Amino acid sequence: MGGGPSELAVVQPKALPQGTQAYEKKRVDLLEAFAAKVPKELRLPADLISNPPLNVSTIPATCELLTPKEIRITENYDAAGLAEAVAHKKLTAVEVATSFSKRAIIAHQLTCCLTQWFMDDAIKQAKELDDYLEKNGKTIGPLHGVPISVKEHMPLAGTYSSGGCISSTVLDEKDCHMVALLRSMGAVFYCKTNQPQAIMHLESTSHYGRTLNPFNINLTSGGSSGGEGALVAMKGSVLGLGSDIGGSIRCPSAFCGIYGFKPTSCILPMHDMINHPFSAELNILGCPGPMCRSLRDMELFTKLLIDRKPWLEDAKLIPISWTGLNTSLPFKPLKIGIVEHDGFIIPQPPVRRAIAWAKQRLSNSADTGAFQIKPFTPFGAKEAVSHTRRMYWPDGGAVVRDAFEAGGEPIAPLTEWGLADAEKYGMLNAEDVNQLMGQRDKFRADFVKSWSEQDVDVVIAPAFVGPACAHDTAFYWTYTSLWNLVDYPGVVFPTPIKTEKGEKYADDYRPLGKECAHVKELWEQMNFEGAPIDLQIVARRYHDNELLGALASLKDVLELP
Amino acid sequence: MGGGPSELAVVQPKALPQGTQAYEKKRVDLLEAFAAKVPKELRLPADLISNPPLNVSTIPATCELLTPKEIRITENYDAAGLAEAVAHKKLTAVEVATSFSKRAIIAHQLTCCLTQWFMDDAIKQAKELDDYLEKNGKTIGPLHGVPISVKEHMPLAGTYSSGGCISSTVLDEKDCHMVALLRSMGAVFYCKTNQPQAIMHLESTSHYGRTLNPFNINLTSGGSSGGEGALVAMKGSVLGLGSDIGGSIRCPSAFCGIYGFKPTSCILPMHDMINHPFSAELNILGCPGPMCRSLRDMELFTKLLIDRKPWLEDAKLIPISWTGLNTSLPFKPLKIGIVEHDGFIIPQPPVRRAIAWAKQRLSNSADTGAFQIKPFTPFGAKEAVSHTRRMYWPDGGAVVRDAFEAGGEPIAPLTEWGLADAEKYGMLNAEDVNQLMGQRDKFRADFVKSWSEQDVDVVIAPAFVGPACAHDTAFYWTYTSLWNLVDYPGVVFPTPIKTEKGEKYADDYRPLGKECAHVKELWEQMNFEGAPIDLQIVARRYHDNELLGALASLKDVLELP
Repeated sequence: MGGGPSELAVVQPKALPQGTQAYEKKRVDLLEAFAAKVPKELRLPADLISNPPLNVSTIPATCELLTPKEIRITENYDAAGLAEAVAHKKLTAVEVATSFSKRAIIAHQLTCCLTQWFMDDAIKQAKELDDYLEKNGKTIGPLHGVPISVKEHMPLAGTYSSGGCISSTVLDEKDCHMVALLRSMGAVFYCKTNQPQAIMHLESTSHYGRTLNPFNINLTSGGSSGGEGALVAMKGSVLGLGSDIGGSIRCPSAFCGIYGFKPTSCILPMHDMINHPFSAELNILGCPGPMCRSLRDMELFTKLLIDRKPWLEDAKLIPISWTGLNTSLPFKPLKIGIVEHDGFIIPQPPVRRAIAWAKQRLSNSADTGAFQIKPFTPFGAKEAVSHTRRMYWPDGGAVVRDAFEAGGEPIAPLTEWGLADAEKYGMLNAEDVNQLMGQRDKFRADFVKSWSEQDVDVVIAPAFVGPACAHDTAFYWTYTSLWNLVDYPGVVFPTPIKTEKGEKYADDYRPLGKECAHVKELWEQMNFEGAPIDLQIVARRYHDNELLGALASLKDVLELP
Repeated sequence: MGGGPSELAVVQPKALPQGTQAYEKKRVDLLEAFAAKVPKELRLPADLISNPPLNVSTIPATCELLTPKEIRITENYDAAGLAEAVAHKKLTAVEVATSFSKRAIIAHQLTCCLTQWFMDDAIKQAKELDDYLEKNGKTIGPLHGVPISVKEHMPLAGTYSSGGCISSTVLDEKDCHMVALLRSMGAVFYCKTNQPQAIMHLESTSHYGRTLNPFNINLTSGGSSGGEGALVAMKGSVLGLGSDIGGSIRCPSAFCGIYGFKPTSCILPMHDMINHPFSAELNILGCPGPMCRSLRDMELFTKLLIDRKPWLEDAKLIPISWTGLNTSLPFKPLKIGIVEHDGFIIPQPPVRRAIAWAKQRLSNSADTGAFQIKPFTPFGAKEAVSHTRRMYWPDGGAVVRDAFEAGGEPIAPLTEWGLADAEKYGMLNAEDVNQLMGQRDKFRADFVKSWSEQDVDVVIAPAFVGPACAHDTAFYWTYTSLWNLVDYPGVVFPTPIKTEKGEKYADDYRPLGKECAHVKELWEQMNFEGAPIDLQIVARRYHDNELLGALASLKDVLELP
């Protein structure tokens, strides 16, 4: 549980590893600075923090810290709806900023999803927007008054960012390109959200704490954009800004039952998105993307940014036209590959149930002629795992280890796990890196060939080996990181499936290997009850428009919110 | 001059560096194998080879080894015209293949532009195409019967390729993706063309010999696709396949007075384009492109390839729609930046004259309102040179040095020059590479900002510091390699300007620095008479369609062939 009187108490069912005294002092300083901004009237009762229920997702609406209107604002709108309501003066930007700021700090006390919170600034921004609208009779831009939450590593003027360890904390003087664009469209910023050490776990435990899954606090909210995942699911945010190099948008979105979109690289603004560049990007590019609660918000976010022609400012970006949900699909019928498992790890029972559900729904509609479903096996999933685990750390982890040491920071078990494969090769030299890139390109060539041979337009697949996992057990990234390795765009979307108590592996289950067996063991050690299940839909590289177009055509069949 | 009785004599005004006995033996073996395919009746008189004129470009038409029809076929058609003539049975594929094969081997004896020549194979391919057309009443594809020459490093089934040194020679069993696509469209292959050691000079001296400029044999034809440049200018090819990582398409095209198009990276098929991957590509991607004699051939080549959706097979490629010359430009007026010099090196007199000519022509038409011309200074040209010289060799040159040693191959002076800046850093480690990539990205960000501030749509600039330079003096790549560093597409196009005897620097010339002064010294040491001048037009990254669209709109004003 969170600390002394000057700290803000937050639910923390599992202790964090301890660092040096200097590290712990710096942590406390950061947490106290945070707590100083949180008024007493927004603090939850101490006994709730000490004795939380397994599912904390409904507490914001019942804890009586929010007015009925604030509950309505945070629950009944998506970002598009908020933008419209503010533009038509049905809501003020101040009301919206207040509601989300309040709900976010409640969410934080229950899930440890934030790293910074600045309600006063948000209300000031919102007031200026309200004044502008009043004075000019028009909005400042298409996101006028829409609150957006931002992942810790992304520079946002006047706030801190960190690159995955305490020693990398800096106060940013200016917005990164993405944030600046959103701000210019009228977005209001009110918090930053938690990410894991090194920003390289599919969980989100940092020096700010361990982020919990709102639906089952013994599970993780996922990572690395796990603060966003929990916050959006707690309805403390309507639209979160995440980033993904191995699953970091899709995993927490899936674990928290929301939408997450990892576009192909170099489509959405990424300039200066992180102050601490990763040598991982020598091999695999990360990219930003939206985490949200509606299909149309994913579209709104992407369309608004691309329509601004960000490539005229960001040298990394590739110009594309955005047609998104309105894409007229060239595929008739739409050939949908279904991944039961990737040939490496058979997913845990509720994920298999979700795949079966999707297959059934699609089969029921197949007679319309709009879809054709077929089995799909992703090429080389097991090989991909070992590739990516090396490719993420061309320096053998030396740079992050130095940074941890500089901060007296304890190395988290999942960091050790992540480094294990790369570390034995040590710091690569340039020719090794060149060879590794050659392996990547060979894999990509084989993958695209296999995809073409299987003749599909999109693929529906698990988003993870299971629902949200127990803390410190997100070992197997295969269902997301494979798509980063080949740089294919993917969306995770909510299904009506939730994990039920007592779900069991099928009698005919035979492990595909030791990792597969390990995943079964992990399943049997834990109660995952209540964890939502998302599925993932993927398209070819740079077929982001076709991906969204496919989602639009599947909206009714898959009951997409 | 070329060797003994079993060798084919070729004009070689400047000796090659000598290697070990083993190396020289292997060279002779390669040259003898080449010579064995060349019938006596296609050999030029020994006294012509011993006493060639300065300008050898007209010899193919006057040497009486070609029939009047063969001269007409090789001089009066572009690739589009040949395709049409063969499709309409005005010419047979065999006639075309014969004409170009014959003219190519004549061109080779005068400029040393080839590395391999296989007329018999070409005629066999052409015969099959003629039979196909006869039998089916239709062509096999849009390049039915069009001969295409291919740069040495690109795998073409049944021929040798090398990666810039003798020890890297391999017999390729299959075509690379690009060649396979062209072949499937009906292209006929008949020769491979020379490239320099390490494929990293702006000249083309390899173990096959030194390629000469057709218009002045004391000058280079440029590099690294210098065999193509000379061959196309000699009209021994109508369409050549080059590649460019620092100017290797644009430089030889400019030196030889033809068109050369370096697209943005990852648009044209590049999978397996070279058997020996460069660590340079960790920082700067190379790309293939056409070298040709007409604007519409550049368009034809690009459009045919992109219309085949090569990204469905080549995982590196980015899908785009090709509108090319028919692009409806969003720019009204078209804002054209004119580069007088890049702030680093003032070009030699005829290049300044060509820029002045273009400026004058455009100014004369400015009152149509279609164009707006303004001065443009590329950001950081000098800084870019030192960046690129390091970025091309993240391994400090260790890999190529090992390869030279393995072959007993002498290191060419321009190879030493190219390695000089990188070598002192030695083999970089992965984190160094990461930092270098960070510098690249910072430079790109600054560059795009500067371009936007100068508010231009396209830029017209020199293609090199002068016309074709004297052998072993292509030191300064700045006017081409800058655009590789930022990955902007560029076309070099012929102008009516030719280098005249006795052209002098202006009286008010003041060197911008020692490199600038060196370029003046080089000018004063040599007679560049007859060397043609191309200019370069550049657009923003991935604005390849807009670039071609701009060229279409400038066709009349700039008298483009």
